[in-house]
Amino acid sequence: MAPRSQTALVGAVSLFLSMGQFQSGPSLPGKHVMEGELGMTTGYAGRTLAGYVAAEAGRYVELAGWTHRVRRIGGITFLLIRDRTGMAQVVFEAGGPDEVKLERLGAEDVVRVGGMVRADARAPGGAEVLGRSLDVISAAEPPPFEINLPAVKAGLDLILDHRVISLRHPTAQAVFRIKADIVAGFRRFSEAQGMVEVQTPKIVATGTEGGANLFAVDYVGRRAYLAQSPQFYKQLLVMSGFERVFEVGPVYRAEPHNTSRHLNEFTSMDWEIGFVGGAGEVMDLEEEMLSGLVASLSEIRGRELSLVGADVRARLPAGGIPRLALAAAVALLERSFGKVSPRGDLDPEGERLLCEATGGAVFVTEWPAATRPAYAAPLDRDPELTDSFDLLLGGMEVTTGGRRISDYAQLRASLAQRGLDPGAFGFYLDGFRYGTPPHAGLAIGLERLTMALLGLGNMREVTLFPRDLTRLEP
Amino acid sequence: MAPRSQTALVGAVSLFLSMGQFQSGPSLPGKHVMEGELGMTTGYAGRTLAGYVAAEAGRYVELAGWTHRVRRIGGITFLLIRDRTGMAQVVFEAGGPDEVKLERLGAEDVVRVGGMVRADARAPGGAEVLGRSLDVISAAEPPPFEINLPAVKAGLDLILDHRVISLRHPTAQAVFRIKADIVAGFRRFSEAQGMVEVQTPKIVATGTEGGANLFAVDYVGRRAYLAQSPQFYKQLLVMSGFERVFEVGPVYRAEPHNTSRHLNEFTSMDWEIGFVGGAGEVMDLEEEMLSGLVASLSEIRGRELSLVGADVRARLPAGGIPRLALAAAVALLERSFGKVSPRGDLDPEGERLLCEATGGAVFVTEWPAATRPAYAAPLDRDPELTDSFDLLLGGMEVTTGGRRISDYAQLRASLAQRGLDPGAFGFYLDGFRYGTPPHAGLAIGLERLTMALLGLGNMREVTLFPRDLTRLEP
Repeated sequence: MAPRSQTALVGAVSLFLSMGQFQSGPSLPGKHVMEGELGMTTGYAGRTLAGYVAAEAGRYVELAGWTHRVRRIGGITFLLIRDRTGMAQVVFEAGGPDEVKLERLGAEDVVRVGGMVRADARAPGGAEVLGRSLDVISAAEPPPFEINLPAVKAGLDLILDHRVISLRHPTAQAVFRIKADIVAGFRRFSEAQGMVEVQTPKIVATGTEGGANLFAVDYVGRRAYLAQSPQFYKQLLVMSGFERVFEVGPVYRAEPHNTSRHLNEFTSMDWEIGFVGGAGEVMDLEEEMLSGLVASLSEIRGRELSLVGADVRARLPAGGIPRLALAAAVALLERSFGKVSPRGDLDPEGERLLCEATGGAVFVTEWPAATRPAYAAPLDRDPELTDSFDLLLGGMEVTTGGRRISDYAQLRASLAQRGLDPGAFGFYLDGFRYGTPPHAGLAIGLERLTMALLGLGNMREVTLFPRDLTRLEP
Repeated sequence: MAPRSQTALVGAVSLFLSMGQFQSGPSLPGKHVMEGELGMTTGYAGRTLAGYVAAEAGRYVELAGWTHRVRRIGGITFLLIRDRTGMAQVVFEAGGPDEVKLERLGAEDVVRVGGMVRADARAPGGAEVLGRSLDVISAAEPPPFEINLPAVKAGLDLILDHRVISLRHPTAQAVFRIKADIVAGFRRFSEAQGMVEVQTPKIVATGTEGGANLFAVDYVGRRAYLAQSPQFYKQLLVMSGFERVFEVGPVYRAEPHNTSRHLNEFTSMDWEIGFVGGAGEVMDLEEEMLSGLVASLSEIRGRELSLVGADVRARLPAGGIPRLALAAAVALLERSFGKVSPRGDLDPEGERLLCEATGGAVFVTEWPAATRPAYAAPLDRDPELTDSFDLLLGGMEVTTGGRRISDYAQLRASLAQRGLDPGAFGFYLDGFRYGTPPHAGLAIGLERLTMALLGLGNMREVTLFPRDLTRLEP
């Protein structure tokens, strides 16, 4: 009941001022710092995490986790315990006091084990635990598929239906830990650029690009929609004096098709920056962010990346990400691959081929005004084109961005020109009447970026609980 | 078009590994690091931020921002420029080349100004700029209310209708910068505890606590709902091997009433932690987090806190946050204030009085099972009570948490006992069949926490674009 000691509080303060995203996990040396402070009332206070067993050679430890595998060889039982940091091998001699419990032990049972650590080069991690005690905390029914194999032998639907099982696989754990690092890296970079994190509403009165692909919400008797993007709000916040904002949040698209790269709910990482001009500067910033991210991941997530089999450094072209006007990209596709693109656009095959031709990634710029939303700013030298870009990475679009129109009359005209009723964009348009700095920004699809960096083929593999045309549960 | 220099990339890498949330803003010494790297194509490359003008004494600077105030005294024009870091005074002599522009200058026009910095103790910030050039980048219409006053003289509705104007007020800027710090601090602390950040779906098939107060979504022909909480998903993720997860995301309540402390969309900061037992340990952790947060804010956001007039350190009881069983809290209210509480509950007045009696904050524990959701774990010594808690801070509930039932049969029985159909909770309940560690967690309302720490009276003051019964725009 007493408050934590003064030392603990000082420790917490310095955490805020330094930080600790990447200090946990077995990629780093040493024992997990805080484990001993949790689990006090339930006997987990002295728990040693599986990934740190080797550091405890010669000492008595207590482990807790899932039963990854049990093998009995000549009366000796080899128990592989799995927790969030990895695996540890526990060896029980024949005829011990827990013989009956050991015989009944099944895959995925949650257990607590006590024993002495002995260094052993043959054991996983270089050490094993000589088991002295065993408690089954929660017995498991036989799971619908085995996860103690190098790869799960189940179809994607079964995998997604049973997330509690499939996510326990070390490769899935690695994917989502890396995804968390990508978000954290994006935020740290944004904060360091003086951007303020904002939360904008996901229940909105109007779509940002007309009325297509919107989910309708019954909002206390009114018709509302789920936000397709924070576009209008992030622009308004730049004008509101924040100048530089970022947001990480869900966005919604009532996509009428099921593909490997579309989901109805996904995570958008947004920037909007005032007193900055061209799309070029936003591309500079994104490239800097991605380069830093890839370098950090390589440095601190080696174990996870090798589990996934991904070399994230190799995803970005060695000499920097090239920038190609759309017209030049289309010409290159035709010249190099005989590929004909749709008018003023690229199709999925074109995106894939372009990435192939450019060493993995390319910024495609100068999109026709006709193919971009009403807020896209036209180029001074050719108003048929916009100062905008898409980043193609790993064969698909992962980012869209550009400079925005910042003049009230011009924006109003641009809406009208697209057949949109300016009156329907009241609060957005009105915001431009009270002094608007030039501004630009981007939106990065977190799941697509994760897919592209890890070389995975389906967005559902990087989404904990995906939402698509057929999947509303779990 | 060239990629950033190698030096810039190395700098970015170290940002990921160290961090930079609190390094921007005028509370810290030195010039804003990155300003010079943005704005290159539009002439803002050399921009000096208003908050750093004093450091440039004797040098020529360019400022860009909003016209906060213009005064003309005896032919001399005093222009106060406002940007995201504060204000700077620019003085124009009579008869200069920009005389006509100066005469036409109106409040909130976006301008760019060049001039020499002169140290002057009388000027705000200890320096002023002797203006040499002036450009109006974006002229503003007269705003619906003045924001260059110590407090905005407008009702809350007008303030919320015109967010682009009202958020420009330095006090509003301070509130939302502090809110961003609170989120960042929560995340840093969570990461340092080994928790993984997750994104769970906000479109769901079932509510977590029966069917009340749900927003319905038309999901490609199926009826779906907006998530009231990530409760089920965060528990499943603990069981999925992540053991410790956190999430910051929107949650939805179709509240049928308009109050100062309810909104239909708000931000929930969630923890769920496996291999940890009692609610007590989660309270320990929250107290440690809050103490660190309050200390950090005091240290690095002095300017913003004094603008808001908040002493965040004084919000937490000096000797630690006391813990009171609900029964004891009810008895205390009756004894000290003659206050009678609803059966097994506290009302808003009781929450306020309890905080008064306990020095600002109190954990209320041991809530009756009848008043908590089906997943709340009963106390071993009295199954009518749960191992749960609410944190009351600044007179209201800002957190709810506790230990969860981790046994399949017990959870099933608990659902049935509340008249809920276990079949309707299929994927959630099924997750408990495959080995479940004991676990506990909490949910903190970000907006309520911000309100309580800053001593503000209405949740709408800490929400950029609030959603309530009448407000769906902006």
